[in-house]
Amino acid sequence: MNYKSKLSKLAEGITSSIIRELLKFASEPGFISFGGGVPDPETFPRKELAEIAKEVIEKEYRFSLQYGTTEGDPLLKAQYIRYLERWEGLKGLTENNLLITVGSQQALDLIARTFLDEGSIVALSLPAYLGAVSAFKMRNPRFLTVPLSEDGMETEILEKKLESLSSEELQRFKFVYTVPNFHNPAGVTLSLERRKHLLELAERFDFFIVEDDPYGALRFEGEHVPSIFKLGGMDRVVLLNTFSKVLSPGLRIGLVIAHESVISRLVRVKQGVDLCSPSLTQRIAARYMERYDMLAKLKETLEIYREKKDVMMKAFERHLSDIGARWTRPKGGLFSWIVLPEDFDTLEMLEIGKEHKILWIPGSAFHVDGSGQNTMRVSYCLPSKEEIGEGVERMRRAMEAYKKAKVPSR
Amino acid sequence: MNYKSKLSKLAEGITSSIIRELLKFASEPGFISFGGGVPDPETFPRKELAEIAKEVIEKEYRFSLQYGTTEGDPLLKAQYIRYLERWEGLKGLTENNLLITVGSQQALDLIARTFLDEGSIVALSLPAYLGAVSAFKMRNPRFLTVPLSEDGMETEILEKKLESLSSEELQRFKFVYTVPNFHNPAGVTLSLERRKHLLELAERFDFFIVEDDPYGALRFEGEHVPSIFKLGGMDRVVLLNTFSKVLSPGLRIGLVIAHESVISRLVRVKQGVDLCSPSLTQRIAARYMERYDMLAKLKETLEIYREKKDVMMKAFERHLSDIGARWTRPKGGLFSWIVLPEDFDTLEMLEIGKEHKILWIPGSAFHVDGSGQNTMRVSYCLPSKEEIGEGVERMRRAMEAYKKAKVPSR
Repeated sequence: MNYKSKLSKLAEGITSSIIRELLKFASEPGFISFGGGVPDPETFPRKELAEIAKEVIEKEYRFSLQYGTTEGDPLLKAQYIRYLERWEGLKGLTENNLLITVGSQQALDLIARTFLDEGSIVALSLPAYLGAVSAFKMRNPRFLTVPLSEDGMETEILEKKLESLSSEELQRFKFVYTVPNFHNPAGVTLSLERRKHLLELAERFDFFIVEDDPYGALRFEGEHVPSIFKLGGMDRVVLLNTFSKVLSPGLRIGLVIAHESVISRLVRVKQGVDLCSPSLTQRIAARYMERYDMLAKLKETLEIYREKKDVMMKAFERHLSDIGARWTRPKGGLFSWIVLPEDFDTLEMLEIGKEHKILWIPGSAFHVDGSGQNTMRVSYCLPSKEEIGEGVERMRRAMEAYKKAKVPSR
Repeated sequence: MNYKSKLSKLAEGITSSIIRELLKFASEPGFISFGGGVPDPETFPRKELAEIAKEVIEKEYRFSLQYGTTEGDPLLKAQYIRYLERWEGLKGLTENNLLITVGSQQALDLIARTFLDEGSIVALSLPAYLGAVSAFKMRNPRFLTVPLSEDGMETEILEKKLESLSSEELQRFKFVYTVPNFHNPAGVTLSLERRKHLLELAERFDFFIVEDDPYGALRFEGEHVPSIFKLGGMDRVVLLNTFSKVLSPGLRIGLVIAHESVISRLVRVKQGVDLCSPSLTQRIAARYMERYDMLAKLKETLEIYREKKDVMMKAFERHLSDIGARWTRPKGGLFSWIVLPEDFDTLEMLEIGKEHKILWIPGSAFHVDGSGQNTMRVSYCLPSKEEIGEGVERMRRAMEAYKKAKVPSR
């Protein structure tokens, strides 16, 4: 039969992701990829995880191989509460404030379903994390977009946009979505002042903040900025975390930290979505946290990221300055963001990039309004230092070739 | 803030599951539970899984601890294709016909989002699997309900109901959802004749069939009936399978087997839902299937289930016959279904059941039309044979007490 004739409007509206298509090239021999935001598998504590996996299956099979509760492994929650207290200074959290999800992506989807209707309004940055946009879009909301600067989301502009909303629109305004630390894709961090300003706006206009923080623990320079959750509390903030960047993405473990009334609603939706997350991966993470200092183990990895970032920044200065490019200088996380002169189109240019065996993510993929043609996301975490140097040179050559072919000389 | 004021209509519409609330009692000391449909953890091959888990983390960490593709582990797909060929006689399947999901529940959710809009029409049985109903309900469809007999869904009645639909309604009719083998909750199996009839109806009225088959491999008596997928092919049937009942629910691995055009659409939705399923659990299952004969290992378990079922059936005959109860005699799977005289309300009676420390699932939970008050689902897979005998006696006492208190004597 023609299944197409049976599709829902939701399914008809989803196009295949550009990034997915692009990353297929990344594995071809000889390619250097600045594309993926994935950790280096050599940094995973595989020996420790292998031992723990064996143990929790042998000794805790009644839990680890069985169905779990929708809310998640109580042991993992207890460990994570301890971790949040130690690293974020968050006190007074209980099991009822946590939900374990299948990666942060599921948290975003659950939040979208729990809070968004068609026509609900959500504010997010330009550019914004693609995964959040995909999850939100399935609910057909309206996006209020806010530009980013080196200090993160320009809350002054958000304020003006909120002021211009009618009271009926404010009724439909649900939350601001933000990646405050080492933003994906932009690499920038929201300043303390702007975090406070965002909370003031949340009070004044009665909305909540979804603080998505996969990269906060990946700081390799500068001072830790308190989380918005820490500053504003669970009455205004829903915090999302994940193990993907600090332990292993293959476990697919994300967490929502929020007011009990939020968690209980997310749980009801999750029941219909997948009943429960895998017990095995949750218990492995719990025992790992119990035995090892997860962040101490990360230090070595972060030192490598910092070095790679430095190599990339130097290469940018050498090869991209005179082409009129600007870029962000991340103090943590995985990404830098390049803004080229306006007559570049980084998606179009990618065809030439492929010829030069170099890959980036075109910035338009991160713009819900279809802008950003002259921007790109680059990641330094996976290629070696040598590859980073060589890769930036290839970028330069691709830019020159593109300019010659496409950009009108003035 | 008042998060309630920000909820979506979807979230407002989801009530907490009765079963969830009930099962909380099941773990109290002294209770005998016929409630859960969960396998006995002693039957999980923990030694084998522990070894494999250690190995795939140590040696295959680049895959098992890393992000995977949305479609799922290619190795697991290859193993499963071999399995389907061997056990279901399905030929010609390729990787593109399979999607790995986080349990069957996620498959149901993805199908709901991919095919259902508000007002779409779906046919299912009365009673129906609760998890499917929850997933479908989030899309706000209209349910066409079809009663069950010992031979499964009464397709003759479905035919009449389809005939009475207007052509506009038939346009909105998407699929028939069925659990053909050892139905949850009813324990019955769809006969070969009715499977064929269902396919004829699918052709005639141009719909597809969602064949949810978690229990097919759990036959302990009688002859295997070919799957609807085997009879009708992927042009009319989307087949759902799971590892939860044949290997371990804690891995949370489900599968969709379908036409490539269906899989590619489900994949796009899954991307926004959780990016990908855990690589680790998928690779563990793949290596397990490679090394062991999954179904041969199940034989012992099935023999235990059959014995327990026999004990339960004998106890029913002894204790429930003269109270006017009828029940199904399953030839596989986990459940029997009891129909009591109409003046019983098994949800109300559960309060008395709790006093007698015996638990069942009230049948109304499985009826989308709110009927079924005098029915209940009972599972024999988890309690011991002694507990089954004792549990049925307790049920009898609870029924008598209920009758005395509630049912008017005539």
